[in-house]
Amino acid sequence: MSRPTLTISSKNYSSWSLRGWLLAKLAGIDFDEVAVDPEDPSVRAELLLLSPSIRVPCLRYDDFKIWDTLAIGEFLNEIAPQAGLLPSDRLARARCRSICGEIHSGFTSLRSALPMNLKGDFPKFKIWSKALGDIARVQEIWRECLETSGGPYLFGKFGMADAMYAPVATRFRTYHVPLDAQCEAYSESIYAWPAMQEWIEQALQETESFEELEAEF
Amino acid sequence: MSRPTLTISSKNYSSWSLRGWLLAKLAGIDFDEVAVDPEDPSVRAELLLLSPSIRVPCLRYDDFKIWDTLAIGEFLNEIAPQAGLLPSDRLARARCRSICGEIHSGFTSLRSALPMNLKGDFPKFKIWSKALGDIARVQEIWRECLETSGGPYLFGKFGMADAMYAPVATRFRTYHVPLDAQCEAYSESIYAWPAMQEWIEQALQETESFEELEAEF
Repeated sequence: MSRPTLTISSKNYSSWSLRGWLLAKLAGIDFDEVAVDPEDPSVRAELLLLSPSIRVPCLRYDDFKIWDTLAIGEFLNEIAPQAGLLPSDRLARARCRSICGEIHSGFTSLRSALPMNLKGDFPKFKIWSKALGDIARVQEIWRECLETSGGPYLFGKFGMADAMYAPVATRFRTYHVPLDAQCEAYSESIYAWPAMQEWIEQALQETESFEELEAEF
Repeated sequence: MSRPTLTISSKNYSSWSLRGWLLAKLAGIDFDEVAVDPEDPSVRAELLLLSPSIRVPCLRYDDFKIWDTLAIGEFLNEIAPQAGLLPSDRLARARCRSICGEIHSGFTSLRSALPMNLKGDFPKFKIWSKALGDIARVQEIWRECLETSGGPYLFGKFGMADAMYAPVATRFRTYHVPLDAQCEAYSESIYAWPAMQEWIEQALQETESFEELEAEF
């Protein structure tokens, strides 16, 4: 297969782009990034949380596209099994897929109340009460996984589940959501992962048109 | 492993229960059904579309639970590979997972505007305009898959993607959504699948407490 491309949008705002990019880094594939045009109305709608988007991330090999984050993760796990995106134990793998599925289809209150914004820092942010249940559930998932695996990542080493929950860790930090010691340590492990640091560094330097969107929030 | 249980809720209303049940039937596993209690407030909330639920379907082997529909599908594909839940070709499999992911995380307007209701029949139903884009996208997915595979199911024989889209076919029929000939034929193939007929028959006989919920819609 040819060298693939990964289509992403804003590094500061797009949590799904971050997930897809971390999965590609984790799999160790050689890929080119393609940024969507922030002037495109559907991209603006996505960034402003006006509509869910199926456009990013999208992994493309010539004419062949994979346009869902979990599908990208499963595909990368198949072509790069040595990277260990999914746990090798069957039951752990099923649990990993359950929690990946949970963030993929749920946590809508958390996602709309605390949008990813890596440049942001809101110490006195008032958290919408409906998001509190989601925040508690995320921490429950983290604790259960860390206790079972022994950490430092959800299933031991950095894998697909950590890529899926990485944007959540940034939201907790951006909006100063209090975490217990175990969850705080896990969040630090997420931030310490080299590809995560690389993404954040690039997000902080993002200066072009995505920036204008901030004022519209 | 012991004989598993599959927790489901209403056969008339719960589209996720239907998906999990079809996947289990497709895999050919021997399982017991466990119905959630319709008097439980969180079950009522789910059925009334007030909250997404992570409770159903849930596949359980003794203490071990898999509580996300895609995770259940992937697990069943691993333990019953001969059932062919996923296409054997890698690229077809990635496309299958992309469209399964799309229904898993998206189509929120379609899902809230046209809730599954197998007993219902609404010939003059006014479809919310936001759902029209979702309806067009579903048909586009169906056409692309059927043209590539040759049908009668999305990837040839009945598989995971058909289980994921089966509740959508019932919504189109319940609310008299016009379909082109190709999509209508596919919908008929879905209805013709024996496990689907079995589920519908049971749904039509569902008389207990779930019924009261209908008035609250």
